Amino acid sequence: MIEPGTVWLVGAGPGDPDLLTRKAERLICAASVVFHDALVGQGVLDLVPRQVRLVPVGKRSGRHSKDQKTIDAMIVEAALAGERVVRLKGGDPSIFGRSTEELEACLTHGVPVHICPGVTAASAAAASAGLSLTLRGMARRLTLVTAHTRAGAGVDLDWKALADPQATLAVYMGKAAAGEVSAGLIGAGLPGDTPVLLIENASLPGESQFRTRLDLLPIAAKAALGDGPAVILVGQAVATPAKPGGACAGETPLSAYQRL
Amino acid sequence: MIEPGTVWLVGAGPGDPDLLTRKAERLICAASVVFHDALVGQGVLDLVPRQVRLVPVGKRSGRHSKDQKTIDAMIVEAALAGERVVRLKGGDPSIFGRSTEELEACLTHGVPVHICPGVTAASAAAASAGLSLTLRGMARRLTLVTAHTRAGAGVDLDWKALADPQATLAVYMGKAAAGEVSAGLIGAGLPGDTPVLLIENASLPGESQFRTRLDLLPIAAKAALGDGPAVILVGQAVATPAKPGGACAGETPLSAYQRL
Repeated sequence: MIEPGTVWLVGAGPGDPDLLTRKAERLICAASVVFHDALVGQGVLDLVPRQVRLVPVGKRSGRHSKDQKTIDAMIVEAALAGERVVRLKGGDPSIFGRSTEELEACLTHGVPVHICPGVTAASAAAASAGLSLTLRGMARRLTLVTAHTRAGAGVDLDWKALADPQATLAVYMGKAAAGEVSAGLIGAGLPGDTPVLLIENASLPGESQFRTRLDLLPIAAKAALGDGPAVILVGQAVATPAKPGGACAGETPLSAYQRL
Repeated sequence: MIEPGTVWLVGAGPGDPDLLTRKAERLICAASVVFHDALVGQGVLDLVPRQVRLVPVGKRSGRHSKDQKTIDAMIVEAALAGERVVRLKGGDPSIFGRSTEELEACLTHGVPVHICPGVTAASAAAASAGLSLTLRGMARRLTLVTAHTRAGAGVDLDWKALADPQATLAVYMGKAAAGEVSAGLIGAGLPGDTPVLLIENASLPGESQFRTRLDLLPIAAKAALGDGPAVILVGQAVATPAKPGGACAGETPLSAYQRL
């Protein structure tokens, strides 16, 4: 399934090992070495057979980690040594996965490289919350952005293009930028009572979901979110379908956030 | 895994049965009845055990199909009769999957309903083409839209918000609307030489990929695309990484499209 000297960039999905694709499972079993992110869940790593070398190359803000160039070099070097290389990434490799650097490094060195797609965090968050991110006539488009920036840099997003009441916005790694997201979107014209759903550790045992509204998002994010990966969903779609006991579109929640 | 009287909306992914999640595979094996779309690949349907009732409810433009209300009623009725119901949808149920109607129908009738996410078409298309949909500093956001509209209605999209040279746009079911997409984005300021990738039947044996540019998209779509589900990817990200022999950003292709 993997030729020696070949690299596969493999999406591990949101964390739940059951949300790995069948192909990803087969690839990690056929590998001789797996280089994995910090965001890849332990349950997924437990599926990697013992005879496969498992190398953490996690990049996680504020913790010790390898830089991108080092990771590129490690992958290429392993492939050139004839290994069957899997580079395992949280979510989908083509969505905020920094895959281009690794693809280019492989192509530059003549290393054949392939991608196995995965379930992206926004899909997993929506599934956990039991909602659709798109809605005929109400949420006609879905935009994915990341609020993760290089140290010191602010969030650089085109708020005007994002502040569409007929769109759904998913902000990946958005906890630290919750204040900027709220101010940016409201400043660009999105109503303060736009429904917001915060999901941390989507699909994992420690998952938590919180409903709030755009103007209360900064308080809610601070109060509700921990250290796990979080997705912020913004838009009318996240208020539907109305669940018994849940906050609906137009309702004002009693507190900054509502634990589901 | 599925309680009798319960409904699961399950993402079948892009078509390749290997791109089904492990959870989806277990759910279709635990079901007593599977209601499936026309877009769910035959390879996926072949995984459904023979003792499970398989009911096609495909909605495909221009062909005989059940309307949404009928599908809602069929699912609810089966659940109320105590069946273990899987509603199998192409891609991810929460992205252009018309899931809200089915979720609401279930909740209205007190039927417990859950979602199993899947790999969405844009991720599969990017994986097949060997590229990332996001790029630091070059493609900072990804927007998914569908060009599929009710019969007779034109495409109603906010071209101004979509025409961002620093974004990637994925148009689902875009073949018929290729002319409108090209004219709309160029009219809103996106350069005519913006790279475009057309992918039909992503992940399936009959997959085909074509590179073109935004101003040539209408001709390319007409000449290159058949009847299969197609995704149109627009933006600088789709021109990277530069493959030997492939069209790169800034290059002018010799013909309207280039078969990869």
